[in-house]
Amino acid sequence: MINLPDDPRHALMLLSSMIEPGDAELDDLLGEVGPIEAVERIWEGNVPERLHRITSASVACTRDPRERCEALVSATAACESRVLIPGDPEWPEQLSDLHLVCDVDEPHLRPPRCLWVRGEGDLAAMCRRSVAIVGARAASDYGEHVADGLAAGLAEAGWTVVSGGALGIDRAAHLGSMARGGPTVAVLASGVQQPYPQRNRPMFDLIARNGMLVSEWPPSSSPMRHRFLTRNRVIAALAAGTVVVEAGTRSGARNTARHAAELERVLMFTPGPVTSSASTGVHQLARGPWEARLVTRAEEVIEDVSGIGGPMAPEPASPSSAFDRLTEVQARLVEALPRGALSDERSLAATAGVPIVTAAETLDRLRELGWVELRDGRWRLAKIDAA
Amino acid sequence: MINLPDDPRHALMLLSSMIEPGDAELDDLLGEVGPIEAVERIWEGNVPERLHRITSASVACTRDPRERCEALVSATAACESRVLIPGDPEWPEQLSDLHLVCDVDEPHLRPPRCLWVRGEGDLAAMCRRSVAIVGARAASDYGEHVADGLAAGLAEAGWTVVSGGALGIDRAAHLGSMARGGPTVAVLASGVQQPYPQRNRPMFDLIARNGMLVSEWPPSSSPMRHRFLTRNRVIAALAAGTVVVEAGTRSGARNTARHAAELERVLMFTPGPVTSSASTGVHQLARGPWEARLVTRAEEVIEDVSGIGGPMAPEPASPSSAFDRLTEVQARLVEALPRGALSDERSLAATAGVPIVTAAETLDRLRELGWVELRDGRWRLAKIDAA
Repeated sequence: MINLPDDPRHALMLLSSMIEPGDAELDDLLGEVGPIEAVERIWEGNVPERLHRITSASVACTRDPRERCEALVSATAACESRVLIPGDPEWPEQLSDLHLVCDVDEPHLRPPRCLWVRGEGDLAAMCRRSVAIVGARAASDYGEHVADGLAAGLAEAGWTVVSGGALGIDRAAHLGSMARGGPTVAVLASGVQQPYPQRNRPMFDLIARNGMLVSEWPPSSSPMRHRFLTRNRVIAALAAGTVVVEAGTRSGARNTARHAAELERVLMFTPGPVTSSASTGVHQLARGPWEARLVTRAEEVIEDVSGIGGPMAPEPASPSSAFDRLTEVQARLVEALPRGALSDERSLAATAGVPIVTAAETLDRLRELGWVELRDGRWRLAKIDAA
Repeated sequence: MINLPDDPRHALMLLSSMIEPGDAELDDLLGEVGPIEAVERIWEGNVPERLHRITSASVACTRDPRERCEALVSATAACESRVLIPGDPEWPEQLSDLHLVCDVDEPHLRPPRCLWVRGEGDLAAMCRRSVAIVGARAASDYGEHVADGLAAGLAEAGWTVVSGGALGIDRAAHLGSMARGGPTVAVLASGVQQPYPQRNRPMFDLIARNGMLVSEWPPSSSPMRHRFLTRNRVIAALAAGTVVVEAGTRSGARNTARHAAELERVLMFTPGPVTSSASTGVHQLARGPWEARLVTRAEEVIEDVSGIGGPMAPEPASPSSAFDRLTEVQARLVEALPRGALSDERSLAATAGVPIVTAAETLDRLRELGWVELRDGRWRLAKIDAA
């Protein structure tokens, strides 16, 4: 008998410690049987060949999955962190927009299934009006000055700054926000217990007290190169827009920019001297292939992210814009529902262009929000006039 | 008896000395009766009230128009300049695109009727592959460095640099081009005899020997504030694209940028530090309302102006692109002609959306180019297959 965890949250924590985030096969398995049975199947070896191969070492050295879950729960509590999973009130729903951009070539782009967070606030609330500021680690004084100024201006206007906790531009952005009393969110490529890089540890402690550290990996996980790229999609998805402040030609900020553009978030950049190699990547970005807006100060950033009524824009006043507050996936499903008729999940998923798993999950959430009703296993709009 | 000039060119020179360029009423009168009869009507007072008012002082102190023409011809020769008028082989035909953007609120935007030029080259040939570089007089060292580098790169690639002859960015652009052996064209807001500003006189002499000084005003005319704005439309219309390098918030470069955008030329800018007030106007420009491309070096400028197959783009290789070499007005008229049928000027002008005067003038030019034929006072396509 396998000693299984009895809490789906614990099962997701365990799975996150074994399989890298965004894994499409695990995602599909979770959608099919849920986290606890997924653990059982993995321990039984009753999973697709690839999943079996990447989990067999963990399974071999862990006879009791439940015990390992308990160790993870203790480690999580020990560093004053906690775990969020989809469906939690604090879960940022805009992350599900990642379903729209992941494809078979890039399965690791699926939304996170589990987030470790360290900090006292409410992550969803904190990210509701948020902008990402990212850029080169090898930033110039000019670049750090610009990032600091943007972050300060955003903080003063009540916007949260999201970044990656790195040296250079990220650091200047986090500190600029906190220096004006703003909350800031650092999305890490390592665990929240010993965030990377070491030199930023005092800053990470400040962020934990004034904002939030976020990671898809268990507390003691070390950063790995591919984790930075995986992490970037979360930064782009959390925020209403991303500003790139300085980047060399091979900067990872370009990767975050791509995610922002593909997620239809607002992509922005701050220019620099054409003679500065620290701005070369930013100027390349400005020439395409994605539309990128030039910004020079926080007011322009706010104008740009507010202009399109993005997912995190200021609370709209008119009653009709309840629809505007839906995430992209939610909105697509609401629009996919025929007026005055019932529809099943499969056809709704097809019409909305989202995976069935996502459709099921999102429809549940839409029911909580009062948008849809379930009748005899099929869905219909609850408020005909609001759609 | 009024002693009238016998050469239409001389009549246009005389009229240019009395009435500011781009005047819509004079333009219409010229279209109706031609330059010599226009002079006669003005001396008779047989013109619309406004034209009469602005010419009456000149008429009062000039009993003999022909004598005044001769004085202008002498003054023109004395400073080694000459006069171009529409229809001359050296006349840059792309100037007629200005017909497309002028409107009743801005009558001064009509194309020039007469250009004084000083320099040995062929203005039309020189502007066939040209880019305008404009910007602030109060430029920073950085801005002048950037303008110099762009101009040098354009010159090396065989592109002519067009600018306004001012201190700062204009000066750096002209000198950067000439330093690499490139031809450069300075479009002045004063006459070509004593170009403004005085401090640039040695540079103007260099330009006259290695490129071209261009002005819509008689040789000794002094610069006036409104003339800089009037002049800007010529810079924008001559070149395939305009690059703005540094500009304060109230810079005249913004005016040139607007003309470039309205003329559907490629509008470009070079960024600078967001902390530099010399770049503020440029960064504003980048945020709209017109589309403006960020460029950092000459290769990008050439890529952008070549990309759209603009009026001055490199000689196309394929036979079908003879059409691409037509100016916008020429192309519209060719397209307005029904295949295999005859059409009169009035209906062609209406279909093409250009003034009848322009249609008549352009159709004459298209006949010279072998595109159209005149039969019984009506027009038809000469080469059916080329259109």
